Amino acid sequence: MDAVVSPPARAKKRRAPSSELLGLLQRRFSERCSTSQAVLLQHGTDESAYLPQPPDAVVFVQSTDEVAFVVRACARERVPVIGFGVGSSVEGHLLAVEGGVCVDFSQMNKVLAIRPDDLTATVEAGVTRGQLNVALLETGFFFSVDPGADASIGGMVATAASGTNTVRYGTMRDNLVSLTVVTANGDVVRTASQARKSSAGYNLTQLYCGSEGTLGLITEATVRLHPHPEAYAAAVVHFPTVAAAVDCVIESIQMGVPLARAEMLDALTIRAVNAHSRTALHESPTLFLEFGASKAQIDEQADIVREIAANHGGGEFQWANLQEERSRLWTPRHHAYFACLQLKAGSRSLTTDACVPLSSLAQCVEETQADITEHSLLAPVFGHVGDGNFHCLVLVDPNNAAENEAAEAFSHRLVQRALRHGGTSTGEHGVGLHKMQYLVEEHGVHTVGLMRAIKQALDPHDIFNPGKIIGPAEAVHTHQET
Amino acid sequence: MDAVVSPPARAKKRRAPSSELLGLLQRRFSERCSTSQAVLLQHGTDESAYLPQPPDAVVFVQSTDEVAFVVRACARERVPVIGFGVGSSVEGHLLAVEGGVCVDFSQMNKVLAIRPDDLTATVEAGVTRGQLNVALLETGFFFSVDPGADASIGGMVATAASGTNTVRYGTMRDNLVSLTVVTANGDVVRTASQARKSSAGYNLTQLYCGSEGTLGLITEATVRLHPHPEAYAAAVVHFPTVAAAVDCVIESIQMGVPLARAEMLDALTIRAVNAHSRTALHESPTLFLEFGASKAQIDEQADIVREIAANHGGGEFQWANLQEERSRLWTPRHHAYFACLQLKAGSRSLTTDACVPLSSLAQCVEETQADITEHSLLAPVFGHVGDGNFHCLVLVDPNNAAENEAAEAFSHRLVQRALRHGGTSTGEHGVGLHKMQYLVEEHGVHTVGLMRAIKQALDPHDIFNPGKIIGPAEAVHTHQET
Repeated sequence: MDAVVSPPARAKKRRAPSSELLGLLQRRFSERCSTSQAVLLQHGTDESAYLPQPPDAVVFVQSTDEVAFVVRACARERVPVIGFGVGSSVEGHLLAVEGGVCVDFSQMNKVLAIRPDDLTATVEAGVTRGQLNVALLETGFFFSVDPGADASIGGMVATAASGTNTVRYGTMRDNLVSLTVVTANGDVVRTASQARKSSAGYNLTQLYCGSEGTLGLITEATVRLHPHPEAYAAAVVHFPTVAAAVDCVIESIQMGVPLARAEMLDALTIRAVNAHSRTALHESPTLFLEFGASKAQIDEQADIVREIAANHGGGEFQWANLQEERSRLWTPRHHAYFACLQLKAGSRSLTTDACVPLSSLAQCVEETQADITEHSLLAPVFGHVGDGNFHCLVLVDPNNAAENEAAEAFSHRLVQRALRHGGTSTGEHGVGLHKMQYLVEEHGVHTVGLMRAIKQALDPHDIFNPGKIIGPAEAVHTHQET
Repeated sequence: MDAVVSPPARAKKRRAPSSELLGLLQRRFSERCSTSQAVLLQHGTDESAYLPQPPDAVVFVQSTDEVAFVVRACARERVPVIGFGVGSSVEGHLLAVEGGVCVDFSQMNKVLAIRPDDLTATVEAGVTRGQLNVALLETGFFFSVDPGADASIGGMVATAASGTNTVRYGTMRDNLVSLTVVTANGDVVRTASQARKSSAGYNLTQLYCGSEGTLGLITEATVRLHPHPEAYAAAVVHFPTVAAAVDCVIESIQMGVPLARAEMLDALTIRAVNAHSRTALHESPTLFLEFGASKAQIDEQADIVREIAANHGGGEFQWANLQEERSRLWTPRHHAYFACLQLKAGSRSLTTDACVPLSSLAQCVEETQADITEHSLLAPVFGHVGDGNFHCLVLVDPNNAAENEAAEAFSHRLVQRALRHGGTSTGEHGVGLHKMQYLVEEHGVHTVGLMRAIKQALDPHDIFNPGKIIGPAEAVHTHQET
């Protein structure tokens, strides 16, 4: 994806490693410490709109001890340390805005333990969700968190990721038991025991989850597993309005129907997927639903949802039960992102991530669509309805400054709107560089002050992914600065 | 409950309020600021075995602003501030080991909002779970967390409480959206938006949950609600061994059966409840199960669990479907605590709270029962099997020092055993005074160091519930000090 937006101007201070430090890392890691321009560039680029900001070196670690070695070495010089999973961040998390050493986890990709009796698995941070699910294939269990990209589990923990089946199985937060973390001293800590619950002191697991590499580097995670249901079924149903589709999902949840997935695609997204996937779906707000239970329960759940949908003007359900049919039925949803990009040749997407209380979701989406129309933007909308989370893909020509500015201004209005509805600037993508300016507005200055105090307590020399989430104390951002 | 165990000797430093501070509080709160001996004693006493440690004053607050007033007033003199819900702590959380001002939340008991469309409610911290569920009676929704006592929701957040239906609906942690907290400066902060999920910065909600009043005072909470299932059914089934009962529950969970409750009572507990409730249950390890779903789903789930139970030597299921029958069938479980106390006239219970990975639960319980036998203790055992959490009620004569010492020694061995099995010293009761000595052993010195850094960052003058969880830096406890 092209990238045209510069990071905030303040992030110009560089803390490059000395030649001694580079030499130390090169002796310790030999060819696993790279300073090649191609490798640096790749590790200073993510899926966001920001210009690349390469680190000064990349170390391909293979163990927690190696991570601790890198952190201790960098801490001596107060050189930044930035974790890197697969680079799928969309908010600029990975950009080395002050330079420093990137710790690439792709070679820490061992599934360390699968414990069917505990319904847990322990993995190295570089294991991707896809790799873990391949390792689980014969067990009857799966790892549920699915943010779309085949992200590393360490990265998913760092951003508190979620995705399409959160409505049933929860976010990354809900699927964590314990973490191994390297702290600012280079100490290796385990945040919690392997018990399913505990009240033994402050919850460091949840503090590191969502900390975006700013408090330490996550090297291992114990995650929860879920048994596959006996059967799955998928359904697609069209609605006259976004509100009708949203209300159908909310009422289903209120009735206790354990939907496995509930995705809403707006009419424009459907137009995009029809063009991309050569389907002929009706171009109106559409729910993609998935049920997972016993066959009898699916029938029961489907009857309830069908009745609710009918009350909201929903059309006929298209059903699929067999794996192959289900995949085909859901293909438009899975391809939505790339299908939408093709609505405008050569475009990139500024992808928003508002999340609001369920009761406000329909209104917030409709206000957002009116905004899109009013400003003549091209921006398909789809969302994880059961969580109140929706994404707008604002399609812009990466080389057209006016379009990019209009997209950023839209994103700004959308965040304001989400906050007015009691929601959050980011449901699952994280703060990174892009949402820092909204932290005070979302949480209040005192709450952000607590976050800053925690950052200073756990990373006093600001070596971990500096300039993200909290940023330096002297630079509390306002929108105008971007 | 009688109380004979002194708090750790180190907690002798007193920081009593000056007469000026007391005068200020009395002028501001008039009769809602009490220094009567009876009120002080009540607020310095919990359900633990510790001798009472009364505060110097109790303020019955009615608003978040009043809490902030008390905190600011106390902060000026660095006088301790201790929150008080209903006093149901079993680990000494409430004891004013350094004196100070107790903030009683019983008059902050308003249900501020019920939002069926959001599946949330917002309550003041003093609302008990029972009060909230009464307020929800006509809505079709309920608040799930049930620790036995009708605890305040603020207290339940502070200890990260859970209970019998955690296996289905999660702990207090899993049912929190946002908190309002008064910080050490007397600032009022909201920890998160009202969205169901967010990646917007460090998760302060989960940091305060389980912080036991040591980082701030929780004044309001937004919690998740769940729809009542269409129907409930209860069942009781006996097993030849603890392992058989535990394995039945684990296999049911592995099969995806969403048990609403799954409680194991050992043979001695059954003996106690038979005597207390005049039932004639077979005195062997017994599961009390609850199902909640549609009637058809309950039948389906029950068939699965019955087959699994039969494979483990389980006996006939006793069933109850109607509310009244279900209550009667579950009465032995609900009365287990008091029934057990009556096994030994005039006794009190030292109640343990180990929680281990599910795969270790049967072995850990069996080793514990062998320990009970070996040391000739009277200690019924029951547990939340689906969480790996079990309680031993070690019954002692409160005036018999040898018995109390033997109980504490047993508790110590049990914690060691739980830690060896990869578990935690406390699954749901919290650290308080009683488990502080195990924090380093459970988490490691570096992890506890992080907790201490957080405490120092957010409460630099140690005014919030001092001497709990972390304690002073100079006094890292070892078992021998107790």
